[in-house]
Amino acid sequence: MRLSIVSLAKPILHGYFRSSCSWRVRIAFALKGIEYEQIPVNLVKDGGQQLTDQYKALNPMQQVPAVEIDGITLSQSLAVIQYIDETRQGPKLLPACPKKRAQVRMICDIIASGIQPLQNLYVIQKIGADKAQWAQHFIQRGFQALEPILKGTAGTYCVGDEISMADICLVPQVYNAERFKVDVGQFPTIDRLNQTLVGVEAFKLSHPSCQPDTPADLRS
Amino acid sequence: MRLSIVSLAKPILHGYFRSSCSWRVRIAFALKGIEYEQIPVNLVKDGGQQLTDQYKALNPMQQVPAVEIDGITLSQSLAVIQYIDETRQGPKLLPACPKKRAQVRMICDIIASGIQPLQNLYVIQKIGADKAQWAQHFIQRGFQALEPILKGTAGTYCVGDEISMADICLVPQVYNAERFKVDVGQFPTIDRLNQTLVGVEAFKLSHPSCQPDTPADLRS
Repeated sequence: MRLSIVSLAKPILHGYFRSSCSWRVRIAFALKGIEYEQIPVNLVKDGGQQLTDQYKALNPMQQVPAVEIDGITLSQSLAVIQYIDETRQGPKLLPACPKKRAQVRMICDIIASGIQPLQNLYVIQKIGADKAQWAQHFIQRGFQALEPILKGTAGTYCVGDEISMADICLVPQVYNAERFKVDVGQFPTIDRLNQTLVGVEAFKLSHPSCQPDTPADLRS
Repeated sequence: MRLSIVSLAKPILHGYFRSSCSWRVRIAFALKGIEYEQIPVNLVKDGGQQLTDQYKALNPMQQVPAVEIDGITLSQSLAVIQYIDETRQGPKLLPACPKKRAQVRMICDIIASGIQPLQNLYVIQKIGADKAQWAQHFIQRGFQALEPILKGTAGTYCVGDEISMADICLVPQVYNAERFKVDVGQFPTIDRLNQTLVGVEAFKLSHPSCQPDTPADLRS
């Protein structure tokens, strides 16, 4: 009895409107048509609400997102997305073909391990380097690698003609690139995929400009 | 005909003896009992062999590892390991239970996105910060988060009593921690798991101290 009550409860996403990793999870929920609750964690206010003891108990990495789902708490967006994919109905977020699945995961990890952590403001600030310059450098370097890979794997979307976890990672990373004034037009495949994807309903609904914690002056 | 020739060929691992991400892939091959060829890419010699045009064509990120397998080339160790797991016989590297799979992936991503990229010498050197100090800082911060998570998930190994991809990520990260003089004894669960795992044959065979490209003075 208890198990079914737990699994019927809506998942809770602890996130931040502008965090690209939180946005990844919002896209996945939207693509799957899963209702969820959002509890905003303001990464800037009060010196960073992710640093409180209360939040640390939920996610010891003190980062967003953290998701409470089916009685467990998961951090790390790709782990959350694959869990949703393996346990929920709706369009599959990874292809059935093992080679294509591997290519999806490779693209995701280039973004999630090779770009995002290095352009993260926390890290750059901590080291005391020039923020915008280093964020630009690491995004540019990552996109130079992604462009030829995507040229080989893409159809309508990042890998073939079905939306996958790779697309879920790409769009928020392009959004970050634009915030840091990287000229995305240098990367025609990335640019074309992003332009297609931002028109898809699940990407629009989950966009940083229209979340419960989006400040009034950034809403659209 | 051509397809079966391709899939019968041994996978080729382009790696470096001391790269923790290369070691992850070597552990996975060893656990699965898969024979493979190693082509060493010396990250230090000649200004870094990963920076050549030849290697860039193989892996545009200019990092190790890159694996040629079944007619495709994959970079990103976790994508490679999951591909091997989904296409090869042998012990499963992810548990069957979706919640446990998610916990394995969360632990892997804390290491692969939250620790390893930040202690990477390339990044720290590029920013011009003190190498050892920052590597220590980011490893210490990551282990402080991993310790309570592993305390909750671990049995004999990182998640329950079967070796998984989480263990494959943990051991090379502890090896890096020790290189940077982090006192791993502060983290009793990490320390205990590592000590158990380094005794397992697949972890010993794949250790940086006994690879084809290990320099004579570092062999054991």
